[in-house]
Amino acid sequence: MEERRPRLTPAIADVRRAVRAALEAAGSPDVLVALSGGPDSLALAAATAFEAPRAGVRAGAVIVDHGLQEGSDAVAERAAGQAHALGLDPVLVTRVEVATGAASVTGGAEAAARSARYAAIDAALEATGTRAVLLGHTLDDQAETVLLGLARGAGAASLAGMAPMSGPADADPHHPHEVTNGVAKGTRIRPLLGIRRAQTEQFCADSGLDPWHDPHNASREFTRVRVRSTVLPLLERELGPGIAEALARTAEQLREDDETLHDMAIETIEDLVEHAEAGIAISAGALAANPAALRNRIIRYVVDSEFGVSLSRTQTLAVAALVTDWHGQKGVDLPGIRVVRQGGRVEFSRA
Amino acid sequence: MEERRPRLTPAIADVRRAVRAALEAAGSPDVLVALSGGPDSLALAAATAFEAPRAGVRAGAVIVDHGLQEGSDAVAERAAGQAHALGLDPVLVTRVEVATGAASVTGGAEAAARSARYAAIDAALEATGTRAVLLGHTLDDQAETVLLGLARGAGAASLAGMAPMSGPADADPHHPHEVTNGVAKGTRIRPLLGIRRAQTEQFCADSGLDPWHDPHNASREFTRVRVRSTVLPLLERELGPGIAEALARTAEQLREDDETLHDMAIETIEDLVEHAEAGIAISAGALAANPAALRNRIIRYVVDSEFGVSLSRTQTLAVAALVTDWHGQKGVDLPGIRVVRQGGRVEFSRA
Repeated sequence: MEERRPRLTPAIADVRRAVRAALEAAGSPDVLVALSGGPDSLALAAATAFEAPRAGVRAGAVIVDHGLQEGSDAVAERAAGQAHALGLDPVLVTRVEVATGAASVTGGAEAAARSARYAAIDAALEATGTRAVLLGHTLDDQAETVLLGLARGAGAASLAGMAPMSGPADADPHHPHEVTNGVAKGTRIRPLLGIRRAQTEQFCADSGLDPWHDPHNASREFTRVRVRSTVLPLLERELGPGIAEALARTAEQLREDDETLHDMAIETIEDLVEHAEAGIAISAGALAANPAALRNRIIRYVVDSEFGVSLSRTQTLAVAALVTDWHGQKGVDLPGIRVVRQGGRVEFSRA
Repeated sequence: MEERRPRLTPAIADVRRAVRAALEAAGSPDVLVALSGGPDSLALAAATAFEAPRAGVRAGAVIVDHGLQEGSDAVAERAAGQAHALGLDPVLVTRVEVATGAASVTGGAEAAARSARYAAIDAALEATGTRAVLLGHTLDDQAETVLLGLARGAGAASLAGMAPMSGPADADPHHPHEVTNGVAKGTRIRPLLGIRRAQTEQFCADSGLDPWHDPHNASREFTRVRVRSTVLPLLERELGPGIAEALARTAEQLREDDETLHDMAIETIEDLVEHAEAGIAISAGALAANPAALRNRIIRYVVDSEFGVSLSRTQTLAVAALVTDWHGQKGVDLPGIRVVRQGGRVEFSRA
């Protein structure tokens, strides 16, 4: 097919440059672009279709039809047509079932859709023997993620936003896969984290590409939509322009901090923790000797990996008080877990 | 004089409990309350007047008259009268000169007033032989500080907010003074960081205390006032209630993280850094071996302490690239500083 040759506008140049740099940083793997048909992912698809052959890599697309909206199959088919026309190959359309009565899923409907989407993407990578997926998250998405994390008040891990490159276990930012000889299987690459959403829209306009506008993006029942339409514009107005960039910069630095502290906490755990019959025990002295940033991460990590329970700040500090403020407390009751201090050990067991 | 005995309402109980806990945590030093006459510091003064004798410590007050508003001397005298009536002793009123043409002062007029205020407080501590000052910052102030830090995008250090207890060098949260046998001279204690501003207003109402309302607090020319009056209420509305508490919780966790990483960076510096004739040099290999969170802090710290220059994120990363992405760069020009890679060393010298 004929290659499109749009005029090289600033938006096109910026997005292409971002894709080129991301492919290079990842060691030039073959990729699939995750395409919704929206301006972000459509610009990403077009820029990738341009850059991939020049980098000597194969680029296809995967379109996930969530089946949540009337006519979603037609939207998916239209996006697939655009991917073909851009020269991406292979192009996969995959239909997923999202549990809509998602009371059981933490985070509700949005989280259920996300987890179904990532499962479908991983399956598409597997089916096509492709190592990495390109995701269209922009700087605006990153800024929104930081604000949503702030609202939860859960510390660096929840403010750290999305990584430019991460392993398949994306739900857990703490287990990035080792990138040595090329990227790990299932790697997620986000080339557009430094690109504003408006630039992707401009890219599409400059390229004569007609993106799909998801009506969900205008639905104020979603917290993320309210952040986008109301909160960020107000922050821009009251705190000065550049707030989205400042939030993205913050995310980058907090991700660095959190990864470093998490790795340090993990390294020390082997020396601190003993497996006991009824559960697990941590040396009280060693726990006390660590700075709070490591101590609290060790407690959260041990409880999470042993019992699958994610502790709140308050719960974590109550456990920490068994060593930092020991005055003979009876112990701490966590959901399904009993924690007691026994001499030189803090013992965790199923309640 | 007669002791006031207001009915023990929830607001009075909460504020008193917070003051009691803070005095205890500090090892019960003698204190001065920094009093403006506003609801926060007036509630703090009243609660301290009640708690201090019961903790066996002496509590006075220091009122700083900034002389920036018409009638500020009368406001200061009125606050002094309230402090006397509450039974605080000694009560000092101190008038400061704030450089109002403060173009030369980083952060402008607000920063100039703050630095004059802290200098006056330190002088009052010195004059009265008192070790610690109690400051009336509330949870709302903390939340506002986090949002202002976010807007700057400067990472954990700027999001970490105010510490419950810190050394006199408050401008630098990184040098908390060692607290061993009681608190260090000039220690700043903030008992109300877990108390909402509305509670301090309620405290005053419940106690029959008539606080002063600073007209500056209604002046939208101050970014902090806009955060208070517009940004936080919108965040509450759009992201759900509890946003101020979430921001304060975030600050606490990020302060932990930042202090730990800062301390680790400082510990390694001695082994990494060599003083040279024209400046200072860091081992490139050791810099590269550190995780980014430590590497970037080392670079910022060395430049700050050697040249008194505070590097931006972009500048820090440009220096880091001399080891993380070395491809024969010519070097990096920072304000007044030239940085070059020479073999196994990164050398900093005055330009």
